[in-house]
Amino acid sequence: MLKPLGDRVIIEVVEQEEKTASGIVLPDSAKEKPQEGKVVAVGSGRVTENGEKVALEVKEGETVIYSKFAGTEVKYEGKEYLILRENDILAIVG
Amino acid sequence: MLKPLGDRVIIEVVEQEEKTASGIVLPDSAKEKPQEGKVVAVGSGRVTENGEKVALEVKEGETVIYSKFAGTEVKYEGKEYLILRENDILAIVG
Amino acid sequence: MLKPLGDRVIIEVVEQEEKTASGIVLPDSAKEKPQEGKVVAVGSGRVTENGEKVALEVKEGETVIYSKFAGTEVKYEGKEYLILRENDILAIVG
Amino acid sequence: MLKPLGDRVIIEVVEQEEKTASGIVLPDSAKEKPQEGKVVAVGSGRVTENGEKVALEVKEGETVIYSKFAGTEVKYEGKEYLILRENDILAIVG
Amino acid sequence: MLKPLGDRVIIEVVEQEEKTASGIVLPDSAKEKPQEGKVVAVGSGRVTENGEKVALEVKEGETVIYSKFAGTEVKYEGKEYLILRENDILAIVG
Amino acid sequence: MLKPLGDRVIIEVVEQEEKTASGIVLPDSAKEKPQEGKVVAVGSGRVTENGEKVALEVKEGETVIYSKFAGTEVKYEGKEYLILRENDILAIVG
Amino acid sequence: MLKPLGDRVIIEVVEQEEKTASGIVLPDSAKEKPQEGKVVAVGSGRVTENGEKVALEVKEGETVIYSKFAGTEVKYEGKEYLILRENDILAIVG
Repeated sequence: MLKPLGDRVIIEVVEQEEKTASGIVLPDSAKEKPQEGKVVAVGSGRVTENGEKVALEVKEGETVIYSKFAGTEVKYEGKEYLILRENDILAIVG
Repeated sequence: MLKPLGDRVIIEVVEQEEKTASGIVLPDSAKEKPQEGKVVAVGSGRVTENGEKVALEVKEGETVIYSKFAGTEVKYEGKEYLILRENDILAIVG
Repeated sequence: MLKPLGDRVIIEVVEQEEKTASGIVLPDSAKEKPQEGKVVAVGSGRVTENGEKVALEVKEGETVIYSKFAGTEVKYEGKEYLILRENDILAIVG
Repeated sequence: MLKPLGDRVIIEVVEQEEKTASGIVLPDSAKEKPQEGKVVAVGSGRVTENGEKVALEVKEGETVIYSKFAGTEVKYEGKEYLILRENDILAIVG
Repeated sequence: MLKPLGDRVIIEVVEQEEKTASGIVLPDSAKEKPQEGKVVAVGSGRVTENGEKVALEVKEGETVIYSKFAGTEVKYEGKEYLILRENDILAIVG
Repeated sequence: MLKPLGDRVIIEVVEQEEKTASGIVLPDSAKEKPQEGKVVAVGSGRVTENGEKVALEVKEGETVIYSKFAGTEVKYEGKEYLILRENDILAIVG
Repeated sequence: MLKPLGDRVIIEVVEQEEKTASGIVLPDSAKEKPQEGKVVAVGSGRVTENGEKVALEVKEGETVIYSKFAGTEVKYEGKEYLILRENDILAIVG
């Protein structure tokens, strides 16, 4: 398995359809397009200048919306993943 | 429902009319145009370098003015929302 | 009424004349031009990385000089306001 | 009177001559030219991320050398002033 | 041996094949390509503004994915290494 | 006399010769050229975000090497000085 | 002797050969080329925003690899040195 470092998160990409499973329709505008995915692994958190580790807010299994242009793609055992920083995640679909 | 992360806020966009419900008329100038919206969800706050979580100042249900070019658009169950950082909110219409 | 967020301030713009009420004449040079206005509302302050809220130095009712290119214009109940950060205010005319 | 905000200082500009009153001759080189002025008002200081207010080092009445391209010009009751940040002041002529 | 400084890590580069030993297939897209390597040495950590030393999260012997364009190449006793900052490591292949 | 502010230092410029008094020969390369000078005054130090004043490391009377393109020139009572930040001083010639 | 300031280090440059004394062969690629040198003097450390002085990790006499384009060249008593920040040192050859 892949274990992300620091404040990074691994996302299993949800392919864009006209209407996604959770009911989100992504508008086709000139603005930055968000994309939907499922969190499969989270890092142990970022360390502040105070030396404290701050745990991530997202959890494994959650469906999230993230900024389309964020992160790095990687394939692992046949599936496509995205590794991005928690800061690039906009919202949890709860 | 959508749950914004950190210092993010979800806004239900109020369509621009010549004069909005709350009486704000938005000037058509060369400067950055503010826009009006209603807060439908707020994140749990930002974490300072001191490791403290700072709660947001805006609350669900408040009408706010925000910077027009800020945030990311998303449609959810037929309604259009904007996800932006609290820092892009200029004022509360109280 | 409009309530500015964080370290923001709402200014009622004082129209530029050759000589303003408080006696300030603004030079017509190549440099950044300051402008005069009256504070009508102040935010609750900025939060430092230490987690402390720092109150603003300017107060409602004060006349201030601010940087001309700062802030966002908004009209509310027929009057023109400017929402800017306290940091863009140069001095209080006392 | 004008009261500068934060770490700002108000300077009464001393017109450049070939040799100034305090004996400083400013070289005409390609480098950034310093200029001489008299401090007429100082702000209450800057607030650090620790939440502490740090008082300014310069005081009213002192003659200072500052960076020529710094600050904002303003005329008040017929005199020309410059509002700049203490950080743009290079040295006190003592 | 080479001992990296601060938050730096020394990586033994794993040559790219169509499918790597650990099963990762790296997609050939327009996005930033991650690369696989083995950690052979880690620095003693970074020092925060609080004066605390923060140990690295990766350990000697671990296989990691890192950003392709990061770091500095060096050859030592016939082997090619990469010296990069821990921040350029995306995930541990565990 | 001139009293530098904060972390600034006043340097009396030592004219470049092929070999300086202290034996330093400055190479004529494409890289940034260091220059030699004598410290004639030091500021009271910089204030950290913690609110502490940090005294300068260089002292009056020391000969230093500094980055050639740093600082602001000023003439005072016939001598040429350079006002620069301690950070632009590379080393003390001891 | 030269005494570097803050987090600076003085390096005696080791001339590049095809294979250096310590066995490092530096590849001739398009990436940033590291270079080998010997530490001859270290500064007293950097001061964090917390007001603490952090001692350097490298010590006099150590052989180090540093980024080729870092630092400032200086000749002193016939030898060529490089003054750079510890942050530009990649690893110690131990």
